Amino acid sequence: MNDVLKNMTGRYAKWLTGEGKYSDIIISSRARLARNLQNFPFVTRTTEDQRSEILSSVLDAAKDSKILNSLYFFDMSAVDELDAQFLKERHIISHEFIGMSDPKGFFFSEDESIGIMINEEDHIRMQVIHSGFSLNETWFEIHRLDEEFSKKLSYAYSDRFGYLTACPTNVGTGVRFSVFVHLPVLTFTKRIDKIFADLIPAGITVRGLYGEGSKVIGNFFQISNQYTLGWTEQGIMDRVIPIIRQFISEEKKARENIMNDQRIVIEDKIYRTIGILSKAMILSSMEFLDHLSALRLGVDLGILPKISKRLLNELLIMTQPAHIQKIHGRKLEELERDSIRAEMVREKLNLN
Amino acid sequence: MNDVLKNMTGRYAKWLTGEGKYSDIIISSRARLARNLQNFPFVTRTTEDQRSEILSSVLDAAKDSKILNSLYFFDMSAVDELDAQFLKERHIISHEFIGMSDPKGFFFSEDESIGIMINEEDHIRMQVIHSGFSLNETWFEIHRLDEEFSKKLSYAYSDRFGYLTACPTNVGTGVRFSVFVHLPVLTFTKRIDKIFADLIPAGITVRGLYGEGSKVIGNFFQISNQYTLGWTEQGIMDRVIPIIRQFISEEKKARENIMNDQRIVIEDKIYRTIGILSKAMILSSMEFLDHLSALRLGVDLGILPKISKRLLNELLIMTQPAHIQKIHGRKLEELERDSIRAEMVREKLNLN
Repeated sequence: MNDVLKNMTGRYAKWLTGEGKYSDIIISSRARLARNLQNFPFVTRTTEDQRSEILSSVLDAAKDSKILNSLYFFDMSAVDELDAQFLKERHIISHEFIGMSDPKGFFFSEDESIGIMINEEDHIRMQVIHSGFSLNETWFEIHRLDEEFSKKLSYAYSDRFGYLTACPTNVGTGVRFSVFVHLPVLTFTKRIDKIFADLIPAGITVRGLYGEGSKVIGNFFQISNQYTLGWTEQGIMDRVIPIIRQFISEEKKARENIMNDQRIVIEDKIYRTIGILSKAMILSSMEFLDHLSALRLGVDLGILPKISKRLLNELLIMTQPAHIQKIHGRKLEELERDSIRAEMVREKLNLN
Repeated sequence: MNDVLKNMTGRYAKWLTGEGKYSDIIISSRARLARNLQNFPFVTRTTEDQRSEILSSVLDAAKDSKILNSLYFFDMSAVDELDAQFLKERHIISHEFIGMSDPKGFFFSEDESIGIMINEEDHIRMQVIHSGFSLNETWFEIHRLDEEFSKKLSYAYSDRFGYLTACPTNVGTGVRFSVFVHLPVLTFTKRIDKIFADLIPAGITVRGLYGEGSKVIGNFFQISNQYTLGWTEQGIMDRVIPIIRQFISEEKKARENIMNDQRIVIEDKIYRTIGILSKAMILSSMEFLDHLSALRLGVDLGILPKISKRLLNELLIMTQPAHIQKIHGRKLEELERDSIRAEMVREKLNLN
């Protein structure tokens, strides 16, 4: 466990490479599947023994699968508080998972494209994350994982409703597609509010960096389907993909317009960010997300040609509190973290 | 007129040298006297002819005085809008003076320590400004100017009330003492609100950079006596000076404390300012005042040893809108000014 996590401080998930389609606007695409085992209640109603049984059933099923058996598995009882935060910051486990009762555990692939939590809100929560705009590919891959598990496990399934899940919004396919997008100019021009308002009746939700209930910071948004009941997976994708394409084209157009009409305002914002990051001695992770947004826009617009998108994506992860502490090798007070973060950013961006 | 003002764009008032006592906290000290001529109504009730008579009487009196005759005099009818703003930014004339009806005029000394407006709120408004904490010296000098005028002019004076003035708060001595102070740490620690609240019953008022009604920006304040009735000049000074001394010692103590307890927070603020000013492409005059406050504190605390206080005081004046336009030689739109200001500041502070 310790060695695996330690090695992870020096490398980052494959979905952070900044590659893939429309990666100037879509940082990553994610598919998530919720599944529950037949003959067990939903997690919040299980006893400790039942959760233990669920966990062993899943582990048994995984042993017989070449794909699943190639994943790392950790029991959460072996994960201390700092490591749990570290894994949450990497989007391998969720905030909710940390709060759930033991026994519980999680799988993930070395490249971090696959993550599977056992005994989160549902018995099994699988996710696949890819760089750029690639919902079809993530669906293809998560479908394979689902098939591997279903070879050995009997899922809670109703002919009328489809897959049964703890939360009614997931009943049906149990699938949620989401994209992690950066929409700085639509936000700057305030057009975003109108666009987001139009999404509600379309069953599309917008969330912050860490999913449900989290704040939107630095112009980074998670856009996903709200319901799955009454739709096929393909039906959901057919509905979500055109909306994402619309975001991409609106943001692109807004960027073009602002570069024609108010280039100096945008340049001012981006260069000021460089100025602040060059000189700041303390830097909170929340503040940095705003700067990261400006830097990303600077890279996308060709104003900061020497900075790579991959580095910015990695900074998104490595500047978070638990990462700072893991990289530094010990627990740190907030002011210490903010000071180390300021230095780390300066060094990584070559601003010294 | 034009030549005089043109030369002024390249040099700055003597009170901006950053010299004098406690100049790390007190930028300048000012005495102001309000006087009205007997046998004329107050300015707002005069006819054009009466204002013309007042102006000529004052000019006649000035001709016979060596001191007064050495001053520049301009009739305001010869001053265009931009020049009027320029003179206001230098604190030679007031905002109110620009709005008063002609005929009106003003005197000032080449070093800008003396300024005299004719037909502002009162017939004669004299001011003397010195660098640092030197209310006694400003009083001494303004008293001499007053004596020069009074040799030839009969002032409106009542044995019971003293000098009569348009606004009741000036009746009595007609004197207002004020200091222009920079209190960044008392402001930062929020202690300033409590201190200012205590001043009200003591008859001391706090104003922004441009006197009555103007906003406080960048931690710069004007502190002055509110009333003059029933006091001698010396009595007012005896009351104001200890209060100013208290400000000085409280601010000094607050600076020491913060440097002991939160040095990195202060350094962060000051270095960020350098970062922003190095890279900003547009800079409003209001925003710059905030940065100026941080720079000034950096100089005072020895964090920015290469910057002189004199340069910062001069920047306070030269970054204002009319100055930017006079220096540039023509009227400019706001965005042009903000862009020129950003460049000017970068160049003057050697941040290129």
